[in-house]
Amino acid sequence: MRPVETISWDEADQVVNLIDQTRLPGAYRNVRCASVERLVRAIQRLEVRGAPALGVAGALGVALAARKITDKDFPGFSEKLATEAERLRNARPTAVNLSWGVDRVMARAARGLSVTDVRDLTLSEALSVAEEDVRTCHILGGVGAAILPGKCTVLTHCNAGALACKEWGTALGVVRSAVESGKEVRVIACETRPLLQGARLTAWELQRDGIDVTVIPDSSAAYLMRQGMVDLVLVGADRVTMDVVFNKIGTYMHAICAHHHRIPFYVAAPLSTFDPVRTEHDVVVEQRGRDEVAFCGGAETVPPGVPVLNYGFDATPLSLVEGIITEKGVLKAPLDWDFISREQKK
Amino acid sequence: MRPVETISWDEADQVVNLIDQTRLPGAYRNVRCASVERLVRAIQRLEVRGAPALGVAGALGVALAARKITDKDFPGFSEKLATEAERLRNARPTAVNLSWGVDRVMARAARGLSVTDVRDLTLSEALSVAEEDVRTCHILGGVGAAILPGKCTVLTHCNAGALACKEWGTALGVVRSAVESGKEVRVIACETRPLLQGARLTAWELQRDGIDVTVIPDSSAAYLMRQGMVDLVLVGADRVTMDVVFNKIGTYMHAICAHHHRIPFYVAAPLSTFDPVRTEHDVVVEQRGRDEVAFCGGAETVPPGVPVLNYGFDATPLSLVEGIITEKGVLKAPLDWDFISREQKK
Repeated sequence: MRPVETISWDEADQVVNLIDQTRLPGAYRNVRCASVERLVRAIQRLEVRGAPALGVAGALGVALAARKITDKDFPGFSEKLATEAERLRNARPTAVNLSWGVDRVMARAARGLSVTDVRDLTLSEALSVAEEDVRTCHILGGVGAAILPGKCTVLTHCNAGALACKEWGTALGVVRSAVESGKEVRVIACETRPLLQGARLTAWELQRDGIDVTVIPDSSAAYLMRQGMVDLVLVGADRVTMDVVFNKIGTYMHAICAHHHRIPFYVAAPLSTFDPVRTEHDVVVEQRGRDEVAFCGGAETVPPGVPVLNYGFDATPLSLVEGIITEKGVLKAPLDWDFISREQKK
Repeated sequence: MRPVETISWDEADQVVNLIDQTRLPGAYRNVRCASVERLVRAIQRLEVRGAPALGVAGALGVALAARKITDKDFPGFSEKLATEAERLRNARPTAVNLSWGVDRVMARAARGLSVTDVRDLTLSEALSVAEEDVRTCHILGGVGAAILPGKCTVLTHCNAGALACKEWGTALGVVRSAVESGKEVRVIACETRPLLQGARLTAWELQRDGIDVTVIPDSSAAYLMRQGMVDLVLVGADRVTMDVVFNKIGTYMHAICAHHHRIPFYVAAPLSTFDPVRTEHDVVVEQRGRDEVAFCGGAETVPPGVPVLNYGFDATPLSLVEGIITEKGVLKAPLDWDFISREQKK
């Protein structure tokens, strides 16, 4: 199995290269970001999305900024770099990994004593972040694969796959690792309105790897559970706080319905997704534009003038989560935050 | 408030006239069905849908058939009428009202002694079914309006409105009656994938009547409940059996989530929707075509070759239902089937 490479640094052209996820599955195109402005737009337009991939995007974004700032005097350069880092951090508010990736590279940049120094340091750190993401996904995949029964149907929501990371994936990384280890895993992908990342991306990347996948409307998941067609729910996360898991809108309803049917509900997320200082009420849940819901493939489906509520994420209390699959094992509530913080600093 | 007339008999042209609901909200067009074949197609293509409207469609369909069959000899005529009735009954399997409407008019036809006789009897009975639907919706609306708080937000799914009946509506009839009686009711309409009846039809008819409506993706309902933004869930029904309520796919998940948040979950359905002889396992849940899910406004959103599961309905156990609002009061589980059968025969 050789999944796609979602985001990477192109040294020859000095650009951040990413797969345009808004065009899948119809077209497989790359976006080449030669400026922070273009990368921020890519993040906001969801050309690149998924918590771990956003971590890599934030990290590479700082390296890109360091290459593109033309100031020769170091204080002026550093000031501009800080401004660009802030723009990257604010491109999307809910996923913690974006600012985590930016901060990690900026912490490294702080050790630089010259413009050249900072350029080298930011790029090498950003590439480390990217490599670690790949390694982390594979370890996490192995941890999760051990939980899955030898033959099972996994329901997932949105895309926590190779396209949400540098490659391999978190929730879908678990599926890939399980399949590689010889388990028979069938995936039910919720289409994930309004932007259909489940239908467009999860189905696409699993089909590409020869893994059995079926797409359903989000609202039919509970009925499939009622009919005994789902053994386990497995999703990714955009941010894990002291009390809840933030993830794509719809995750919470699956968690409630899984609980109702006594089906285990798992989250797969690297430790970089954990936020040890915030709770549900401290986090801004992004509200996205009306048109994402009101238009379907160009056709207007909501009458003009009727308002739309379009939350990008929801919050699932840890009490509904059977376990969080991480690269350091399966964590269960109440979470051991001392352990998590210690591991995050390593 | 003067809602649209969803389906009617045009005596001058001898056609069943209906609003083409597949074109809303973009275009407001009528379909004029001059043959049973065209009416069956309208039912299958969902140009007309909604349990009570299907009851009227079935009834008018038999009257239409009686007008169009050219056989002059009575046995030949009767045989053809029975065949046409069977085609109408089988146009869609899940909603009980369709066959209920057909059967009611056919029972009347059985009293006819000549072709002319049967033509008169079927039309007058079909028009009675249509008139009764209007009357029933208004009574049911009043019953339900009494339950709603003076100021509340009602979450609904799909379209159980004027467009699902001859006019006024069941769930939305309750909202209309409450608003008419001076209550402040705000509606949250789940868009209802895959065919978006909530976004397209519920939003359209409520906006038309000046009732406050907001559209959301189906999967965000639970998160709105979590934030205290929903006071009550109110949906229609396609069939109420001894143990469950069949309704549009997604209803079951709302019921589970409402239960989890201790939000009352009500069904609004006329007694013609009640099936006193079947249970969940006796009813075929319609599975609809792949393309309804795989294409969005012409764009292919599921990769070619990836299968889709597209259930049209789901089943909600009565234990999750606070009450069923009918024209004879609010019924609670365990249902009094003697009473229901008695009232149905009146």
